[in-house]
Amino acid sequence: MRQSQLFTRTRREAPTDEVSKNAQLLIRAGYVHKEMAGVYDYLPLGHRTIQKIIQIIREEMNAIGGQELFLTALQDASAWQKSGRWDDEVIDVWFKTKLKNDSEVGLATTHEEALTNLMRDQIKSYKDLPFSTYQFQTKFRNELRAKSGIMRGREFVMKDLYSFSKDKAEHDAFYEVAAEAYKKIFARLGIGDKTYFTYASGGSFSKYSHEFQTVCEAGEDIIYLDEAKGIAINEEVYNDPEVFTTSGLTKETLTQAKAAEVGNIFTLGEKFSQALDLTYMDTEGKPQHVFMGSYGIGPGRVMGTIVELLSDEKGIVWPEAVAPFRFHLVSLAGNDEVLREYADTLYADLTQAGKETLYDDRDLRAGEKFADSDLMGMPWRIVIGKNTVATGEIELVNRATGTVEKVTREALLDL
Amino acid sequence: MRQSQLFTRTRREAPTDEVSKNAQLLIRAGYVHKEMAGVYDYLPLGHRTIQKIIQIIREEMNAIGGQELFLTALQDASAWQKSGRWDDEVIDVWFKTKLKNDSEVGLATTHEEALTNLMRDQIKSYKDLPFSTYQFQTKFRNELRAKSGIMRGREFVMKDLYSFSKDKAEHDAFYEVAAEAYKKIFARLGIGDKTYFTYASGGSFSKYSHEFQTVCEAGEDIIYLDEAKGIAINEEVYNDPEVFTTSGLTKETLTQAKAAEVGNIFTLGEKFSQALDLTYMDTEGKPQHVFMGSYGIGPGRVMGTIVELLSDEKGIVWPEAVAPFRFHLVSLAGNDEVLREYADTLYADLTQAGKETLYDDRDLRAGEKFADSDLMGMPWRIVIGKNTVATGEIELVNRATGTVEKVTREALLDL
Repeated sequence: MRQSQLFTRTRREAPTDEVSKNAQLLIRAGYVHKEMAGVYDYLPLGHRTIQKIIQIIREEMNAIGGQELFLTALQDASAWQKSGRWDDEVIDVWFKTKLKNDSEVGLATTHEEALTNLMRDQIKSYKDLPFSTYQFQTKFRNELRAKSGIMRGREFVMKDLYSFSKDKAEHDAFYEVAAEAYKKIFARLGIGDKTYFTYASGGSFSKYSHEFQTVCEAGEDIIYLDEAKGIAINEEVYNDPEVFTTSGLTKETLTQAKAAEVGNIFTLGEKFSQALDLTYMDTEGKPQHVFMGSYGIGPGRVMGTIVELLSDEKGIVWPEAVAPFRFHLVSLAGNDEVLREYADTLYADLTQAGKETLYDDRDLRAGEKFADSDLMGMPWRIVIGKNTVATGEIELVNRATGTVEKVTREALLDL
Repeated sequence: MRQSQLFTRTRREAPTDEVSKNAQLLIRAGYVHKEMAGVYDYLPLGHRTIQKIIQIIREEMNAIGGQELFLTALQDASAWQKSGRWDDEVIDVWFKTKLKNDSEVGLATTHEEALTNLMRDQIKSYKDLPFSTYQFQTKFRNELRAKSGIMRGREFVMKDLYSFSKDKAEHDAFYEVAAEAYKKIFARLGIGDKTYFTYASGGSFSKYSHEFQTVCEAGEDIIYLDEAKGIAINEEVYNDPEVFTTSGLTKETLTQAKAAEVGNIFTLGEKFSQALDLTYMDTEGKPQHVFMGSYGIGPGRVMGTIVELLSDEKGIVWPEAVAPFRFHLVSLAGNDEVLREYADTLYADLTQAGKETLYDDRDLRAGEKFADSDLMGMPWRIVIGKNTVATGEIELVNRATGTVEKVTREALLDL
């Protein structure tokens, strides 16, 4: 894309009321716009970035057989009354509103109730199980405070997958598969080495749930991690001796760290299938409750964590897999028509070769262009300057390391 | 996808409270689930279908330079108070709710205010114009009644594009381009021949707006159409003599018809840029108000219209471009292992060749499978039965026409 056509612009300062580093940088670089605390619009660059994250998650959810769907935000009270979660004291982040007939409806904070309820039409027999289904859908949570930028929103897109199994054994097998898929996802997203499989508090059907915690100063959690094993324990269960037996960790090898919860997997068991009476007929024709699990990732939380973790004093540093564009082609052609044509042709060739490129074709000083490029954070900067045509050498700068190489046009198109 | 793994099932009867044909069929075929009146979940088949529609629209919006973004549903009152549309008597379909600090927020019914407001940070100079930006985003509208299935929702995804131009001339040029893009979209969606470019009431900056109206008994509008020209006049402006001069139509060639509004394009002019003070500096350094337009399509409305228009007594009939799967491979193998293996291999080969196929590998009677297949509406049914292996001939049924052909395996893989 030509930067002269991109409608967003960079800015020197973030809004004064924005305290989180991720939102400060994302606003300054033109990725997001703040509507109100915890409520952010995704502008074209931000939309491209979060869609990259979403696509990686989608591919891994499809790979384990997840069937994608899309549930509604508006929720009727009835299913939630059955599970006991309609009450504002049970879920204290409800947004509620009213239909014209004065009946109250809520904006989904999560979708266990809705999905369990609709499965009553779909699941009849043991032959229908197991399966899993997921969505990328907007959740609304009326947080009292929202000061973590896009890492904790009042409105945010979440990937939530739900599994439906005949019994705990079948569930456990899928749970393992889902945990492995999550590890793949965070590795592909470029934060695998900082992300720990973390024991956290569970529920009535499983003593522990598991979180994926990324070590990060902006995180809201405290974990105790074993770096060599890639496993951690959340502070909330750290004082329970049993967690050491279960996890195989020992206190001596653990380090305390602040971390952001980028994903979680949870054994729900029969909690919702009992409350909402979701059963299947077993091989003997007897009704049994479906055994469920839920598996969440917040793509915005991941995006914010990446910014917090990898940015430097100059701006954002995107991993290749999630950058809105892989290359930032910065032309210093000015009034030099030959150089401009060279840059135009290179941009066309890169695009033709499927290399996603943001082309800074604007009429600005080199210093401003480089500062913008550093702030926006594409992994590779290609600089077309005075000597490029004469020498046939193109300057290639790695955003993360700052390394500068001289490469030929051919090498660049092969990169 | 193997149908034995798809978690949805077909049902003989729609819920008794569902009066619209589109929702009745879509619920029976397992495409959607009704949460409440006007609020529908998209199950895997429905999600695939609406995503096909969305992707076609996206491609055509990108082709005219539209930059995709994603705005929030939660809306602060301030921008809407400036435009005068916060009041429930001005917009009578607001859903409103409250933050913890008791301040009122609304759920966006549309996004002119939010977008005009955020552009104040982005648009500075005449050099920044023109451009357009769009999204696929959930709108909430508190409709008093919602009896048209997915054609009129209280919560629905909408594609809304907004254009920003220096003046009316620049705007008019883009408006023409957008109108042509819309014609392409409806042609690609398979309803081009039934969709009319329709003159409707405008606003202060343009006497008429334009709707794209698809002739359809379930539609809520009355239009007067010229079949040869593909142009129509909405009843609401039919008694204005000027509309005939502007449209070039004459009463004598027009036929009255019921129609569904599947898209609209609208000259907003300076209505919002004046209210929210969105200006740019012109070449002489003087501030000027930005000239705007808005361009909507409801993908769910389109999906519902297609069902209303093309279905028959047996069920849904999808056009190839929007069907969740192009082929429905129906295996009548029963206990015949050779036949089952033949069908399995054909399914693998079709998938390998990139032909999207739903494979009915379930252990059911032929009659049930055919009834399901008719109800679900994939464009081509492939039947693998007793004689297939012996004769090498595969039965191929066209869902729309009912035509049955015998084709070879090779011909099928080339289709």
